[in-house]
Amino acid sequence: MSEVRQKAIQAQAAVPQLNRLTTDQKNKALLAMADALLEKSDIIITANGEDLERGRQQGTPESMLDRLALNQERIAGIAEGLRQIVDLPDPVGEVLETFTRPDGLHIQKLRVPIGLIGIIYEARPNVTVDAAGLCLKTGNAVLLRGGSSALSSNRKIVEVLHEALAKTDLPPDALQLVEDANRSSVDEMLKLNGLLDVIIPRGGASLIQNVVANATVPVIETGAGICHTYVDESSDPVMAAEIAINAKAQRPSVCNSMETLLVHAAFAEQHLATIAEQFRELNVLLKGCDAVRRIVPSAQPVSEEDYATEYNDYILNIRVVSGLEEAMQHIAQYGTKHSECIVTANTENAERFLHDVDAAAVYHNASTRFTDGFEFGYGAEIGISTQKLHARGPMGLPALTSTKYRITGDGQIRQ
Amino acid sequence: MSEVRQKAIQAQAAVPQLNRLTTDQKNKALLAMADALLEKSDIIITANGEDLERGRQQGTPESMLDRLALNQERIAGIAEGLRQIVDLPDPVGEVLETFTRPDGLHIQKLRVPIGLIGIIYEARPNVTVDAAGLCLKTGNAVLLRGGSSALSSNRKIVEVLHEALAKTDLPPDALQLVEDANRSSVDEMLKLNGLLDVIIPRGGASLIQNVVANATVPVIETGAGICHTYVDESSDPVMAAEIAINAKAQRPSVCNSMETLLVHAAFAEQHLATIAEQFRELNVLLKGCDAVRRIVPSAQPVSEEDYATEYNDYILNIRVVSGLEEAMQHIAQYGTKHSECIVTANTENAERFLHDVDAAAVYHNASTRFTDGFEFGYGAEIGISTQKLHARGPMGLPALTSTKYRITGDGQIRQ
Repeated sequence: MSEVRQKAIQAQAAVPQLNRLTTDQKNKALLAMADALLEKSDIIITANGEDLERGRQQGTPESMLDRLALNQERIAGIAEGLRQIVDLPDPVGEVLETFTRPDGLHIQKLRVPIGLIGIIYEARPNVTVDAAGLCLKTGNAVLLRGGSSALSSNRKIVEVLHEALAKTDLPPDALQLVEDANRSSVDEMLKLNGLLDVIIPRGGASLIQNVVANATVPVIETGAGICHTYVDESSDPVMAAEIAINAKAQRPSVCNSMETLLVHAAFAEQHLATIAEQFRELNVLLKGCDAVRRIVPSAQPVSEEDYATEYNDYILNIRVVSGLEEAMQHIAQYGTKHSECIVTANTENAERFLHDVDAAAVYHNASTRFTDGFEFGYGAEIGISTQKLHARGPMGLPALTSTKYRITGDGQIRQ
Repeated sequence: MSEVRQKAIQAQAAVPQLNRLTTDQKNKALLAMADALLEKSDIIITANGEDLERGRQQGTPESMLDRLALNQERIAGIAEGLRQIVDLPDPVGEVLETFTRPDGLHIQKLRVPIGLIGIIYEARPNVTVDAAGLCLKTGNAVLLRGGSSALSSNRKIVEVLHEALAKTDLPPDALQLVEDANRSSVDEMLKLNGLLDVIIPRGGASLIQNVVANATVPVIETGAGICHTYVDESSDPVMAAEIAINAKAQRPSVCNSMETLLVHAAFAEQHLATIAEQFRELNVLLKGCDAVRRIVPSAQPVSEEDYATEYNDYILNIRVVSGLEEAMQHIAQYGTKHSECIVTANTENAERFLHDVDAAAVYHNASTRFTDGFEFGYGAEIGISTQKLHARGPMGLPALTSTKYRITGDGQIRQ
């Protein structure tokens, strides 16, 4: 039997025991995990050093090595993340509906764990701990398949977590790491129907696309974000500039940052040159349509392909549009239904935009960067869903639960 | 371009217009559909006659022809189903959460249509109308792919509905029927990512398995039901018999009927012979384990395969178990997580069963036959989900919606 199937079976076998844990038992297990990470940080950092060394030998870019690197401070941050999950309310057992039928049947709909959750991710070892914490807190078993470049780190982290869990009521088997670095282990994981209840991919567009295109297990699609800000004719130029700059440049590498700025023609004539100057001061490379380049001659020409690209970088497309309709058409064509914003003083236009634009989060006069579990007050998130089923937008703990109907009677039969 | 892709594009193009309809506009369209079915029932019945004739020539069994057959009374029932959907509350626009963040951002989470829903089904022409009504009521476009044996009926029904919709505010393009009877049209539909937002299969186990195994579009799995009733030691023998008989024989052909009866050994010694006799009077064929056959000699031997079979017929497996644990193990091994019941006077055992058994609906002292949208008071349902994501159990109108975050600010940017 392959490693991935064997570990899925082990994790699934822990599901009934997990299902019987109280919130207190789960929280104690998470705290033990946090303590163990701090205590054993030296050996984790040593293992991480092996990954970094291998990465350097393979010529991995510094930015990638930085995502991979662990130090005392980062491990402390990861442990603190677990403590924050402990503080979040446990959604399991929450009664969502309760009603009594005319025949006396009492029906409750309540939240239950999903079962076994698969996470496929890249080279960030912090995801190993975050994902484990969020899944275990909600009573789910978890099968982790991280990138091979972080394998030594992940193996050591999971070893430390297993040792910690062995001293708690939470069965260590509930947490499994696939160590097989071959692509075939991912392919097999995507088709483990009957063992895996859901797969959540966390990573770049190509990882997510591979999962969506090949999985037969249900998937929650996350992350891809080609987000827009539309600056309407009537918008306050200072507010518009602040929101646009924040959406692009406050942290360009994340999915809720803006890739394309759409500007009403009349606003562009008056204010675009000033805003473009602010972007240039922040070293943002500008690409623009012909109308933009008349106003901002230094902008490079923009292509259809640019509009369809998630840069995650200090690069911005700018397009002048005739108004709300053209802006919404552009968003419908190129957006990924993640986060979309209108800056306007026209409430009618704002209402149209908020209603008609099809996205997980639609904004009026605020930066798209707010699409985030912490910013919404949900606490830690497993990702931002860009699909429409089960969960959409920032996924807090309730997104990691299913529901169950509990029906009690005194002999009712159907007529 | 293939017919299925072309019709998906046409339906998807109607989504923005659908999204702007009020509840009243949608209800008027549904009523117009109901009226048109009644007015044009003659030509629908004529078209249905062609399907029946073809079916007879091909030697289709009578039971299948009965599912396919339409007459004035059945069409009146189908039209009445549409009127009942009109009476259901419209979930679209419902505000599920609303909160203001410390920085003044106002966030609402509200229900929105999913977009374009694909339905793949078999030879029941009533599904054409039911599915169209439920999807359109929730502001979704719908791409229908029914069985080829009902093609003439479905084509005529959709023609009648299109004519009716043309006189309403609801764009007729929102309702599309795939007429290509080749299997390849299903295969293509399963991979229409970006056009289809979800596929809901309605039909037998092989249809559902094909969809689950091959779709890259998200799927809501419905229907497969290997349901159990466990009769505990302490249960009232009259109640136990009534519930078991109702669960098996009130309507064996549906997914929430019982396939296997699990009986505590001590209860079996005292009462199984009597219950078996009642089943025989209803012409239920009994299969049993060795312990059962000592008590009920006429029972046939039961196999592992029988335990894993959804009969949907007057056939019942009976197994004697040592108690609650063995019963729950059997259910975990053979169940499809649909509906599971315990009959007991022991509240501790009932609590264990209701908590530990992993199924969409778990029952104490009531027949599994209640797992149904109407019985739960939800009104018409699109199916019974046996998966854990998005919707589980009877799916009423809210299961046909997604959500969206609507965020309004006055210039907030992220720090």
